[in-house]
Amino acid sequence: MFWGGREGYESLLNTDMALELDNLARLYRMAIDYAKEIGFDAQFLIEPKPKEPTKHQYDFDAATTIAFLRKYGLENHFKLNLEANHATLAGHTFEHEIRVASINGMLGSLDANQGDLLLGWDTDEFPTDLYATTLTMYEVLKAGGLGRGGVNFDAKVRRGSFEPEDLFHAHIAGMDAYAWGLKAAARLIEGKVLDAFVEERYRSFREGIGADIVAGRATLASLEQYALQNKPIRNESGRLERIRAALNEAIFGV
Amino acid sequence: MFWGGREGYESLLNTDMALELDNLARLYRMAIDYAKEIGFDAQFLIEPKPKEPTKHQYDFDAATTIAFLRKYGLENHFKLNLEANHATLAGHTFEHEIRVASINGMLGSLDANQGDLLLGWDTDEFPTDLYATTLTMYEVLKAGGLGRGGVNFDAKVRRGSFEPEDLFHAHIAGMDAYAWGLKAAARLIEGKVLDAFVEERYRSFREGIGADIVAGRATLASLEQYALQNKPIRNESGRLERIRAALNEAIFGV
Amino acid sequence: MFWGGREGYESLLNTDMALELDNLARLYRMAIDYAKEIGFDAQFLIEPKPKEPTKHQYDFDAATTIAFLRKYGLENHFKLNLEANHATLAGHTFEHEIRVASINGMLGSLDANQGDLLLGWDTDEFPTDLYATTLTMYEVLKAGGLGRGGVNFDAKVRRGSFEPEDLFHAHIAGMDAYAWGLKAAARLIEGKVLDAFVEERYRSFREGIGADIVAGRATLASLEQYALQNKPIRNESGRLERIRAALNEAIFGV
Amino acid sequence: MFWGGREGYESLLNTDMALELDNLARLYRMAIDYAKEIGFDAQFLIEPKPKEPTKHQYDFDAATTIAFLRKYGLENHFKLNLEANHATLAGHTFEHEIRVASINGMLGSLDANQGDLLLGWDTDEFPTDLYATTLTMYEVLKAGGLGRGGVNFDAKVRRGSFEPEDLFHAHIAGMDAYAWGLKAAARLIEGKVLDAFVEERYRSFREGIGADIVAGRATLASLEQYALQNKPIRNESGRLERIRAALNEAIFGV
Repeated sequence: MFWGGREGYESLLNTDMALELDNLARLYRMAIDYAKEIGFDAQFLIEPKPKEPTKHQYDFDAATTIAFLRKYGLENHFKLNLEANHATLAGHTFEHEIRVASINGMLGSLDANQGDLLLGWDTDEFPTDLYATTLTMYEVLKAGGLGRGGVNFDAKVRRGSFEPEDLFHAHIAGMDAYAWGLKAAARLIEGKVLDAFVEERYRSFREGIGADIVAGRATLASLEQYALQNKPIRNESGRLERIRAALNEAIFGV
Repeated sequence: MFWGGREGYESLLNTDMALELDNLARLYRMAIDYAKEIGFDAQFLIEPKPKEPTKHQYDFDAATTIAFLRKYGLENHFKLNLEANHATLAGHTFEHEIRVASINGMLGSLDANQGDLLLGWDTDEFPTDLYATTLTMYEVLKAGGLGRGGVNFDAKVRRGSFEPEDLFHAHIAGMDAYAWGLKAAARLIEGKVLDAFVEERYRSFREGIGADIVAGRATLASLEQYALQNKPIRNESGRLERIRAALNEAIFGV
Repeated sequence: MFWGGREGYESLLNTDMALELDNLARLYRMAIDYAKEIGFDAQFLIEPKPKEPTKHQYDFDAATTIAFLRKYGLENHFKLNLEANHATLAGHTFEHEIRVASINGMLGSLDANQGDLLLGWDTDEFPTDLYATTLTMYEVLKAGGLGRGGVNFDAKVRRGSFEPEDLFHAHIAGMDAYAWGLKAAARLIEGKVLDAFVEERYRSFREGIGADIVAGRATLASLEQYALQNKPIRNESGRLERIRAALNEAIFGV
Repeated sequence: MFWGGREGYESLLNTDMALELDNLARLYRMAIDYAKEIGFDAQFLIEPKPKEPTKHQYDFDAATTIAFLRKYGLENHFKLNLEANHATLAGHTFEHEIRVASINGMLGSLDANQGDLLLGWDTDEFPTDLYATTLTMYEVLKAGGLGRGGVNFDAKVRRGSFEPEDLFHAHIAGMDAYAWGLKAAARLIEGKVLDAFVEERYRSFREGIGADIVAGRATLASLEQYALQNKPIRNESGRLERIRAALNEAIFGV
């Protein structure tokens, strides 16, 4: 696991970012060569984080890390270890980061903590928000699991939780929250709670002009032709409020 | 209800803030005088909001509004109408704002929407987060209710939820979430789920030197005397992780 | 100087905020009594900070601290020590915080550092932004100076600036920036660069109905009368872009 | 210019992000084919923006857009149109975004406005901050210019600046600020003000083991050998405070 916590800059004013990124790629190549040499077959991982301790870290988020790996032809040697609180510091939900990694074939492993969205630093709290654990496990199940990665809390107790007993409570709270989230995610998938909405919303891409677009048969000219036929298009609601109520029903029985 | 949405500044560079605040107080006094004159007995309310549309609004949050009202001797004529998404834009939880108003005798009414903490503007979403609705109703019940105020959603559907049907789903989702939160809050209070922790944590203020402090009998000299006696003080954990697990148990049965 | 850095909460769930604020006031009263007893005549100061290390600190910003002091009748015994980076963490410019303190008669002292507005924690950088130092000194000059307070950097060098020499460079950079800002602020005041715009913008409050409002002679009835006369009101621009260009002209000669 | 302002999601719950990104790539391919067909030789541009109006836009920032283009093999057909206020909404400085585009060969064009870093939405202000215009033009000059792109303000006057005259002042203020920034950037480059620090800081990569790393001659084994020789390494300061003072000297003569 490469945690690039110090791979970033304090200020662009004194930084040769191009050289630093080239060097980072060189280090990764050396590691790949060395692993090959000694027959080391583990999964190499990179953990994105946007900032802290530096002002700006090179592996800002999943997309930035993927852009980097593709530039240097390293994308087949690495997967991502995503962390919930790093996602939120970068301005994303954890689900978003997992989805980005997953649809790019880069989902590797998870640091399953939680942050405080009203604070601007990494709090690494034990995860207890059941919405978050459910949606995280939902993305993982949809992605077909984590492959050779795992779920690690990377969490710590608070300044005011300094007794050994707190570590027990915290681990139990976190494990229960993730176990519960896994079961809730399974219920969501089995009941097609979200899939039903998504399939309905995108159904126009499974027939007619939509299917042509997806199959790569459409051109600007054919789309122009279609538009000129002036067939009425009925916009439809994305039903977000109904979906959020359905989520409360499905995961909490409310 | 005075919603000071335009009472703020775009830039301090061209603003006479002292005059504007004086004028705001003058307007409030005129309103009080007029209400008296016509025998109007409703509760005057002010709704804090930190920004949007202006860069900085005078009634930034509950504490700022209270400071203003006290400066001009208006605190007995007004209470606060607090809004969830305004709280988060100001860097506070909704619970925090309600608590601040409540312990200052200024809790008036609620705009019970929800925002997106990863976005920096007022989204005014219908409330569906059951943690939030539970903790909001918990603060309201602890405060002895809202007096002459009420709970208003002040929410709108999304850009992608534009059909009349969405309004039904949204209101049902919001009402269900608040009704459920009210019942969960009542369970928390009846079961003393949080009170038990709080009472234990502050018990040192109910006896000995702590009780002296609270009763106003302590001085720096008496505290020095106490400290010099060198009685061992055992710090104790705030048990936050245990409390969060207890919250999941009590409100979701997890 | 009371720096309430630990006076705040990690979570409302286990916090008796009312008791903690009462206790804070009790401590301040003990300090006032003790100072009187020993004939200590220094200026008591409180330094607002919104968060860090706690999630939420009681002295969040100038307005919150003023609300607190007024509640407990302590406002005549304290002034505020404002810090630039604490202002920005609270969502305010430093100028805003100084203005709030100044118009409430509470300006005491300054921690003249600077933060990074893209980061969410206190970086305590040495001040080098000449816009910021100019506008800070502008507010101080307009307030008639700092009384018994002073200007303290409360800044530290960076993780990558660890040699003794860096401390020299940093102090020189900060002092130069503030000295330059003081002179630029004096030029702004002498040239009435901003005052001219402000006086023009608020001139309607110096005559007619505006003067009546300011003098407290207006009522809702007299305003209604005025409005019914239907005199045309010409809205006027706040000229913010012109002002910003004037600022560049006046302070940088651009 | 493709401004993907609506290409994003309100919520992942009802979104098939993989399909939407595939469709976006299909549209871009159709546009490329059509341009070829009609002999249209302009530069295609994409403008990254992290959010607003949607919660999360697909072209979040420069790196995200580059990752997307590389996935679909479109990187040779597009360059980026970067906007200052979009950069800051994504958590980056404008300089950072230009540098990222530049070192990836993707710098196309600029929307040279400015935002308010204490606000969370796109304010599109006319640029007047001379630090910002200087550092922006510095990156552009270092990148060898903008190629077939240009500098466009994409700015608007404020709610309180509604008279035609304000548009004149705003454009003059913005043009002056950028013209001044260009000249200041040229002075920085000619005087090697920043380059001198950067060259010194990275000089260890131009000789010995550092040169071996850059040339790709180093392996983990050769680095181990080097480390075992135990040659003393002297860490050196990045001199950020000195650099910031030098910047004030060079661009403002302070």
